[in-house]
Amino acid sequence: MSDPTSNARPGRPRDEQAGPAILAATRQLLDRHGYHDVTTALIARQAGVGKQTLYRRWDSKPALILDALADHARRDIDWSAPPLADDDLEGFLVRVFAAVGRTGDTLRHLMAEAQSDVAFRSLLKERLIEPRRAALRAVLERRIGADPAALTAAVAAIYGALWYRLMMDEPLDAAFAGDLARLVPGRLSAASAAP
Amino acid sequence: MSDPTSNARPGRPRDEQAGPAILAATRQLLDRHGYHDVTTALIARQAGVGKQTLYRRWDSKPALILDALADHARRDIDWSAPPLADDDLEGFLVRVFAAVGRTGDTLRHLMAEAQSDVAFRSLLKERLIEPRRAALRAVLERRIGADPAALTAAVAAIYGALWYRLMMDEPLDAAFAGDLARLVPGRLSAASAAP
Repeated sequence: MSDPTSNARPGRPRDEQAGPAILAATRQLLDRHGYHDVTTALIARQAGVGKQTLYRRWDSKPALILDALADHARRDIDWSAPPLADDDLEGFLVRVFAAVGRTGDTLRHLMAEAQSDVAFRSLLKERLIEPRRAALRAVLERRIGADPAALTAAVAAIYGALWYRLMMDEPLDAAFAGDLARLVPGRLSAASAAP
Repeated sequence: MSDPTSNARPGRPRDEQAGPAILAATRQLLDRHGYHDVTTALIARQAGVGKQTLYRRWDSKPALILDALADHARRDIDWSAPPLADDDLEGFLVRVFAAVGRTGDTLRHLMAEAQSDVAFRSLLKERLIEPRRAALRAVLERRIGADPAALTAAVAAIYGALWYRLMMDEPLDAAFAGDLARLVPGRLSAASAAP
């Protein structure tokens, strides 16, 4: 829609790069300082933009950090390699837990922010919770079948356990992934183990 | 230890009543205003004590509210009547969900506070999380047996699902209690259903 050769509005090209620069600066500062100590002032300075430019795009620190996290997840997690069996819940959870190990500090603070801010709660649900639920639900459906109530309860149980352990500082390791997966025994894997 | 007939230290009797008065005022104000709008200044005024008296006993608003909640739970919830079967997970969850329906706003804010305050996180775990885990674990053990890893995973799955739904504003109703309970089928109830 914009013409990159136009010089009519000199602020534009820089403004178009501001979004990605702000997201990159947010990720760098989160890695370096952790959620609590990152401020929008720090992020704007690191990205080389004014705070106004930042607040034109994101109306709060949690909203910006949620976007940086969602963007980060798309770049970092390669769900396709090595391939997992379609109903390999344990393998799926091992990967999810590993990703949470890298972003857990940020995730717990975003969930905390969502408790006193209803608008942010909706945003968190839409951007982070729902897409992850859909991915887990697909794995579970291949494992236990399509009963909607059973699927909804299993998704809540497994992601609930993840958040509960994260927020209580308890381990999210491969052993716990296996223990959780065994709560939801696969019909297909049992059948395929038979001769 | 104190002598109620002594007038030697006139501040004492009033100070001894301050704790219960503060806890009662906290519960009244929570019911009336909700967690967010309750302050220690409001609580002290309602209890008729100075803020110093309050802070001699509780070093923060979340710590005080946690105590008021724990005290409240002991008074309000009568787990013994009507009696439940020892392994009736669904009946147990229906009662837990009903209690959470009354205190959920406070619980979600306490969990949020715990994310940025490690000392309060330990207190929350010790006073609220661990006793409730022990109660659920006892029900589950009668239902599925004593395998520690399976019990730990089932407790995390069920209380995780509860917190996840609470924090995401999703229903904690009898239907969900049943769906969750069916994730952990009882060996004994299946056996006792046989002739």
